[in-house]
Amino acid sequence: MLVIKIGGGAAIGETAYANFAADLAELNEPAVVVHGGNAEFSRLSAALGMPPRMIASASGRVTRYTDRATMDAMLMAYCGKVNKRLVAALQAAGVNAVGLSALDGAIATGRRKAVLRGTEDGKPKVLRDDHAGTIEQLDPRLVRLLLDAGYLPVLTPPALSHDGEPINVDGDKLALALAEALQADGLLFFSDTPGLLADRDDEASLIREIDASVPGAALAAASGRMTVKVEAALGAVGRGVGRVVFADARVEHPIRRALGGAGTVVRASALPAP
Amino acid sequence: MLVIKIGGGAAIGETAYANFAADLAELNEPAVVVHGGNAEFSRLSAALGMPPRMIASASGRVTRYTDRATMDAMLMAYCGKVNKRLVAALQAAGVNAVGLSALDGAIATGRRKAVLRGTEDGKPKVLRDDHAGTIEQLDPRLVRLLLDAGYLPVLTPPALSHDGEPINVDGDKLALALAEALQADGLLFFSDTPGLLADRDDEASLIREIDASVPGAALAAASGRMTVKVEAALGAVGRGVGRVVFADARVEHPIRRALGGAGTVVRASALPAP
Repeated sequence: MLVIKIGGGAAIGETAYANFAADLAELNEPAVVVHGGNAEFSRLSAALGMPPRMIASASGRVTRYTDRATMDAMLMAYCGKVNKRLVAALQAAGVNAVGLSALDGAIATGRRKAVLRGTEDGKPKVLRDDHAGTIEQLDPRLVRLLLDAGYLPVLTPPALSHDGEPINVDGDKLALALAEALQADGLLFFSDTPGLLADRDDEASLIREIDASVPGAALAAASGRMTVKVEAALGAVGRGVGRVVFADARVEHPIRRALGGAGTVVRASALPAP
Repeated sequence: MLVIKIGGGAAIGETAYANFAADLAELNEPAVVVHGGNAEFSRLSAALGMPPRMIASASGRVTRYTDRATMDAMLMAYCGKVNKRLVAALQAAGVNAVGLSALDGAIATGRRKAVLRGTEDGKPKVLRDDHAGTIEQLDPRLVRLLLDAGYLPVLTPPALSHDGEPINVDGDKLALALAEALQADGLLFFSDTPGLLADRDDEASLIREIDASVPGAALAAASGRMTVKVEAALGAVGRGVGRVVFADARVEHPIRRALGGAGTVVRASALPAP
């Protein structure tokens, strides 16, 4: 069973959806798709006159302030446009997809952090009414029910707070939590890059393989946002996911290529997979 | 088993969602919710600078022209904001809701009519690239799977064309097709009116009961858009739905009141239901 995360970058639209759908129609094993929607979210927010407010934490992590109106825009972009256009592309390719948010069936629940502290444009800020949080529990029963009945689940943030409110959670983390809960054979992260790059400005610096049994070397080769992804991949492999692949969403046959060795492969040992 | 249609009027928002959720948490029989989203759709379209283009057919029926960008707005309003806010309200009330569009699992499929002919502001028009259609087939398997597993399905337009494209279909007709496919014991239509009115400008002119065995009298009492609703209700009762109720979405305990006799009840015979 594969968990396939499709990023929400601006380069990933209808053409990519059709490419993924064609591969998923040919795939010989069950799969779950998790997707982002950041570019659509930003585009919609801008069109509605709600430019993003980015808050930096003391540790330097930058998050988007999600007030109630921003959450509505997130619901519209992620659960409305991206989720349903992807489902339609899959249905058009003959794949019986079912689009869900992590709210549905309480698939992913977590704690809402209503107060966001940090700096905005260098000034200290305390913003209340934030609708963001962290996944604490992943209930895979609904996803399993659909898989067992032959459907392809297509899942997107937001998740559900303990009070029953939508909370903005990271799509990569949702995919990770799902892959771990399902003990997936593989977790494939597709974005607008060929894989993990040693130099993020040079697509030729692709790291082909990471041996999770030697994490020090893997982390030394990573930097910035990539460090988070490498750590997450190492953690997933350590918790039973067969292998993690970072691959390019912008090509024809993205899944076939990733399963054939393209991109960056993270596995428990660098020996070839059995 | 009940099919509960919640209209998409401007008066039906978060307060109504919470009222419905409270009743659904107490309901002693399985239910499926179908909802509209017209007010949110219009509000979003206006905010995005896409005012509705209304086309009148030769027979006088007025439909909204749905080009591709308008369909995106429909997906965002219906499947994004309304569907997920309703699911969150249900989850907050302890109801394990699962939000779906009729695209998902190909629940409702039909023929797309890409060319829309009629008059716009009195002038003849032929508009291409319309994304609207008519439901031809209702596949209740996904809804049954969820019901049998204890989930409450929450369903919204659009439906799926035979080419795998989203098509704008009427929410009332989706609810009707679903109630017939599931042979529901009851189909409750909630909107921003107390029920079917003999005089649509007078809420005191509520018609309490319609005997489907005397359709002539029922239709004589109806007018305009109400005629379509009465015909649909008579058809549903004739095709095996236990009873159809038209009731008020704007009150506390809307479902409890409708099941207790409020609104307009349409049944096979005006004798009390067994």
